[in-house]
Amino acid sequence: MLETIERALGAHRVLEPRGALPQAALRLDADPAIGPDEVRIAVERLNLDAASFRQLSESCGGDGEAVRAAVLEIVEARGKMQNPVTGSGGMLIGVVDAVGSGSPLGLTVGQRVATLVSLTLTPLRLTDGLTAWDGRSEQVPAAGTAILFARSIAAVLPDDLPDPVSLAVLDVCGAPAATARVVERTGARRVAVLGAAGKSGSLSLAAARAAGAADLVGLVRNDAEAAALGASGLADRVVVADATDPLAVAAAAGTPADVTVVCVDVPGAEHGAVLATAEGGTVVFFSMATSFSAAALGAEGMAADVTMLVGNGYTPGHAALALDLYRSNAGVRSLIDPRVEA
Amino acid sequence: MLETIERALGAHRVLEPRGALPQAALRLDADPAIGPDEVRIAVERLNLDAASFRQLSESCGGDGEAVRAAVLEIVEARGKMQNPVTGSGGMLIGVVDAVGSGSPLGLTVGQRVATLVSLTLTPLRLTDGLTAWDGRSEQVPAAGTAILFARSIAAVLPDDLPDPVSLAVLDVCGAPAATARVVERTGARRVAVLGAAGKSGSLSLAAARAAGAADLVGLVRNDAEAAALGASGLADRVVVADATDPLAVAAAAGTPADVTVVCVDVPGAEHGAVLATAEGGTVVFFSMATSFSAAALGAEGMAADVTMLVGNGYTPGHAALALDLYRSNAGVRSLIDPRVEA
Repeated sequence: MLETIERALGAHRVLEPRGALPQAALRLDADPAIGPDEVRIAVERLNLDAASFRQLSESCGGDGEAVRAAVLEIVEARGKMQNPVTGSGGMLIGVVDAVGSGSPLGLTVGQRVATLVSLTLTPLRLTDGLTAWDGRSEQVPAAGTAILFARSIAAVLPDDLPDPVSLAVLDVCGAPAATARVVERTGARRVAVLGAAGKSGSLSLAAARAAGAADLVGLVRNDAEAAALGASGLADRVVVADATDPLAVAAAAGTPADVTVVCVDVPGAEHGAVLATAEGGTVVFFSMATSFSAAALGAEGMAADVTMLVGNGYTPGHAALALDLYRSNAGVRSLIDPRVEA
Repeated sequence: MLETIERALGAHRVLEPRGALPQAALRLDADPAIGPDEVRIAVERLNLDAASFRQLSESCGGDGEAVRAAVLEIVEARGKMQNPVTGSGGMLIGVVDAVGSGSPLGLTVGQRVATLVSLTLTPLRLTDGLTAWDGRSEQVPAAGTAILFARSIAAVLPDDLPDPVSLAVLDVCGAPAATARVVERTGARRVAVLGAAGKSGSLSLAAARAAGAADLVGLVRNDAEAAALGASGLADRVVVADATDPLAVAAAAGTPADVTVVCVDVPGAEHGAVLATAEGGTVVFFSMATSFSAAALGAEGMAADVTMLVGNGYTPGHAALALDLYRSNAGVRSLIDPRVEA
C-alpha cells in the first residue's frame, strides 16, 4: 500500500533529497517518458503564483529579461517551478499528450486541462526558452512537458470560457471553496476580506455571500481598487488601508469580523487580520506570503482568541465552484477580467 | 479607542519600524521606566522556545559560550529576545517590580509571575550578562527587567509547584488547550501526536484523552522516547518514525487520525502530518518550525481535504488547564520532569 501512496504522490520522481515528497524536494526528474500511472501534459502556459512573481520582479528591479532568465534557471536546476525565496509556484495549462495505462485521473489524449496541483511539485521541462514571454506578467506562454501523478488533480478546461480566464480562476479556486465552507460551518454573518479586489479576494467575497454571510467588508490598498470593488457590488463596505499596518487595518475595518480572509500577496498581513477579527472568530490565510510564526505569536501576543486556518488549496468541488461564481457574478468578472491577458 | 488598542498592544514601545506592533518590530524600547498602564517585571529566568534554542545551539556547534553571546547580542540589538532565524522567542519568569496605576492586569508588587505572551514582543533588558547560564539549556537564569502592556498576559505562579516546572508547563500551555478544544468541537476519536514525548506533546495527549478522544497514537523519534512514552501510559500506541519523512510517518501511524497534533521542533513535519490525517480531519500545527507554504501547498499537492490550524498560543483558561493536567497526570509528570532543571 505504501508503495502505491509513494508512487501516487510522485516520490519516485524525487532526485534530491531521497525520501522527500515532490513539493519538499530540491530537484525532480522531469523526464518526459511516463510511467504506467502518470500523465504527460504538453505545456501551453504557466501561471506564476502572485507572491512568487512579485518577489522575482522586485528582485530583478522589474527587468523582464532578468525575470525570464531567473524562471528558466529555476526550472532547469530544480525540474519544477518553485521560487526558492517564497517557496511557491503556480499552475499550468496544456494539452494531455500521453496517458499511462494505469492512470486513475480519467484524462484522454487531446483534452485541454489545467493542473490544480502546485507547480512546486510538478515535474516540468521547458523547451522554448520562454521566448514568447516578456517577463512582465504572471501568465507565461511556454512550451515543454509536465508530469501528473496518480494523485494529482487536473481540471478539463470548460468550452465556454477563454483559457486565460479559466486559468486565472482555477489558480485561486481553493480560496472561495474554503471561504464558503468556513462561513457555512461557523454561521458567520460578518466577513472581512483583505486584498478584496484581487482574484482570490473577489471570488472569496462572492463565495461568502453565496454561503450566507450578510455583511461583507472588502479592504483594498488604494482608491483605484476601492472604486473597482465598489462598482462590483461584491462588498457591502469598501475600506482602504495598508494591510501590513495592523492598527490601520483595525481602524478601517471597524466592528471585528466573524471571519477574516487574507488574500493579500505581500508579507506582514497577519497581525492586521487578527485585529480585524472578533474574539472567537476565524482567520483564513490564503496568501503564500503568510508567516506561520508571525500569525501564531501575534495572536498569542494580542491575547486574541481566534481560530487561524492555513488555507488549503484543495477542497472537493473547488474548481466547479470558482468557475460557477465567475460565470454567474458580473462583479467577479469585472474584477478578474482586467487581470487576465488577452 | 485606537490609541487605547495601540498602547494596550505596546506599539508605543516600538522603535523600528514605525507603526509596527511589538512582535513584528525589529527593535523595541526596553526602558525600565513604566507608563501608567504598564507593569515591570524583575526577571529571574528566561525559557527559550525549543526551535529557537535548537537553531542557536546548532549554528554555534553546541558551544555554550557562543550561544550565550548570541542571546545577549540579540537582546541588546532588538530590545527583546526574538531569534532572527526562527522568528520565535519563549517566555520568562520573574517578580512584579512595579505596577502602573492604570494597569488592568490585576498584578501586585512582589507576586511571582510567568509571562504568557511571547518574548518576541516583550521589552527586555538584561543586566547580568547571563553569567549564571552555561548556554546549554533552554532555561536561562537571568537578571534584568521586562515590560508588560495592558493586553499582555501573565500567570501568577502556583505555590504548589517549583518555578521551573511551572515555567516549563506554562511555556506550552497553548497546545493542550487548543487540542482539547479541537477534539471537543470535532468529536474526534482518533488523535495522533507527532513529537509526543515532549512537553507540548505529552500535555496534548493528556488533553485529548480528557476531551474524549479514545484512540491515541504517539509518534516519537527514537526507542528511548518510545520507552518513556510507553511507560507514561499517555498513548494507546507508540510508534517510532522520523517526523520529517512523510512516507515513514504515514506507515508508522497506520489508520489516519481524525486530529493530528504537530509538536515536533524541527522543520519538515508538515507533509507527514497531512498524510497521517484522515480526509475531513484536522491538523493542528504547534511547532514554530512549521512552514506555512509547505503546509498549504503540500495538502493541495496531495489532494488532501484536511483542515489545518495555526496553533494559537492563547486560548482562554490555557494556563490553568495545563497546570491541572500536570498535577493530575503522573504520565505527564514522568515526561516533563526530566526536561526540567533543578
